[in-house]
Amino acid sequence: EVVRLAVIPGDGIGPEVVAATVPALRSALEAEGHRLDVTSYDWGGERYLRQGAAMPADAADLVKRADAVLFGAVGRPDVPEHELVWGLIIGLRQQLDLAVNLRPVRAFPGVPTKVRDTDGVDLVIVRENTEGEYVGAGGAAHAGSGHDLGIEVAVHSRRAIERAAHQAFALAGRRSGHLSLVTKSNAMRYGYPLWDRVVREVGELYPAVRLETVLVDAMAARMIQAPRSLDVLLASNLFGDILSDLAAVLAGGMGMAPSANVLPGADVPGIYEPVHGSAPDIAGKGVANPVACMLSGAMLLDDLGHVGAARRVRDAVAATLRDARHHTADLGGSATTAEVASAVLHTMESQ
Amino acid sequence: EVVRLAVIPGDGIGPEVVAATVPALRSALEAEGHRLDVTSYDWGGERYLRQGAAMPADAADLVKRADAVLFGAVGRPDVPEHELVWGLIIGLRQQLDLAVNLRPVRAFPGVPTKVRDTDGVDLVIVRENTEGEYVGAGGAAHAGSGHDLGIEVAVHSRRAIERAAHQAFALAGRRSGHLSLVTKSNAMRYGYPLWDRVVREVGELYPAVRLETVLVDAMAARMIQAPRSLDVLLASNLFGDILSDLAAVLAGGMGMAPSANVLPGADVPGIYEPVHGSAPDIAGKGVANPVACMLSGAMLLDDLGHVGAARRVRDAVAATLRDARHHTADLGGSATTAEVASAVLHTMESQ
Ligand SMILES: CC(C)[C@H](C(=O)O)[C@@H](O)C(=O)O
Ligand SMILES: CC(C)[C@H](C(=O)O)[C@@H](O)C(=O)O
Repeated sequence: EVVRLAVIPGDGIGPEVVAATVPALRSALEAEGHRLDVTSYDWGGERYLRQGAAMPADAADLVKRADAVLFGAVGRPDVPEHELVWGLIIGLRQQLDLAVNLRPVRAFPGVPTKVRDTDGVDLVIVRENTEGEYVGAGGAAHAGSGHDLGIEVAVHSRRAIERAAHQAFALAGRRSGHLSLVTKSNAMRYGYPLWDRVVREVGELYPAVRLETVLVDAMAARMIQAPRSLDVLLASNLFGDILSDLAAVLAGGMGMAPSANVLPGADVPGIYEPVHGSAPDIAGKGVANPVACMLSGAMLLDDLGHVGAARRVRDAVAATLRDARHHTADLGGSATTAEVASAVLHTMESQ
Repeated sequence: EVVRLAVIPGDGIGPEVVAATVPALRSALEAEGHRLDVTSYDWGGERYLRQGAAMPADAADLVKRADAVLFGAVGRPDVPEHELVWGLIIGLRQQLDLAVNLRPVRAFPGVPTKVRDTDGVDLVIVRENTEGEYVGAGGAAHAGSGHDLGIEVAVHSRRAIERAAHQAFALAGRRSGHLSLVTKSNAMRYGYPLWDRVVREVGELYPAVRLETVLVDAMAARMIQAPRSLDVLLASNLFGDILSDLAAVLAGGMGMAPSANVLPGADVPGIYEPVHGSAPDIAGKGVANPVACMLSGAMLLDDLGHVGAARRVRDAVAATLRDARHHTADLGGSATTAEVASAVLHTMESQ
């Protein structure tokens, strides 16, 4: 079988972590008798500077030819952020209608963390990926009068909540049977109460899953205080964003956090990307941690049904991380991106 | 001088932590030659069940007779949460127009934390306290049709941002000269860009303060990864809420986090309250940690100009916490609320 991969390396450390990941995916697939076919797209900040748009108008159609998309990161100090966020990241998520963003966090043995006692932490954040506080709706009033108002409108639809909820309940059912819904219905009266109601209704179809509802502020504290009390979390676009950066700390930081943007049950390629950004401060130095991107690649293989290949990548990453000589600077080590990548490849090939 | 204190013990552990705090405030004031005059109000969940409202219609006028308000906590499983939140906590904050919520977090030597290396952590979150995502505006569309929408409207005004910003810059100027503004302008296009703009403008009046702007997701991770890189944070109502629960973890948890709701420069009493809630699970057992409430009391004394009395309370709390025998269950100890309270009193009186 041939896996057709679209690759968007992007800006900053994006190309570096993607370059570290593609050979691992290829090796894992070939070990299982498959092939990897890569098409690379030069979308991102540089293209914006050159052509006035971070991606072409038919970007969604182009990537639809692939089975899946591996995305690095975008962001450059000399490009207005919204051109890359709305013009590429959020734009593509919304155009492909990638309803759900899955953000697993797992503490690998041997990786130091700022939080004590993270052994065995293994949780997944299911983030609604198309709306909520991120619809881009709102406006200004009295602009320039000295009494300006900025009005931000969040839209939460039953449809989007249901899609994310089904994913979350199904996932929780395959895992511990425990789902934590994160809302803030004591202070926000229209959006989050709808979440509470719809998720409870969807839950009736999954009687084996125990649902709890936790306020976002309490969840932020609990994420650090008692992460092993958590398994699957379901959250809105904004809350999922905040909580997933926070959860990454449990695994050693942003360099360890993979993600998948998917539309379950549909024939649309998912976008797999590290949660970290383009990190312009370390770009070009070859010291970025490629693990988040590699683990995103493993999620990609899993979702395409190449479970064995995915396991190869994940196991090799885990084995590599046990040795502190393979830790990049963000983990307190001094390994380069290329050293980590070749250690993972080497481990995979000697298995 | 006589300090007129209005006390709202509230529900759950509220009355327990307030009862532990008032004698300490009295003792500290008397040691400086002042007196404490207490008026207690039975507002909260029980009153709601009895009289249909958590507080009387003239509550704001009543507390305006006092110099300051000490608030415990409200919340009971048998009372709809919004009756207590909108009917009391948020209601009173808004009626008194308490523009700013100050939430300091300080790691006390001797107190264990889930986060490594928190020695010397000492930061303050300045939270806008009247609007943003908490205005209670919005509505529903297509309700009951199976295509329901919940629409939540956040309102950010230049006036409210300016009030909070002046507080934050002034505070940063008295501290390290470093202010971190927390927004999410890459994904939310109307509210947070106004924050960025207005805060930058206000900052021109405080040239000695260095301003940085940090995305809320990145800030959540940094709060745990590098808390000593932070001093004063300025955040919206929602972001300040989330980040302050999280920051409390750096000090040992919610039992350690005080707060002050104030309207700087106006003759309106501030409301001083622990950040924690009513904790119905441990209510009535006498095991709640009174430190958050005691430290809220110290903030109250400070703001009334009784800086010496405030220092007495704070120093006694710090000295008490050095000894693990005075740690309550939330800190891994087995001390009761009353034991902590009397240890603090004893320390204060022997100083
Ligand atoms: C009770 C709730 C509305 C409140 C808030 O979010 O403001 C609480 O969480 C707090 O932090 O004081
Ligand atoms: C770039 C930004 C808009 C994005 C988001 O908040 O979704 C990023 O933080 C992420 O988490 O993927």
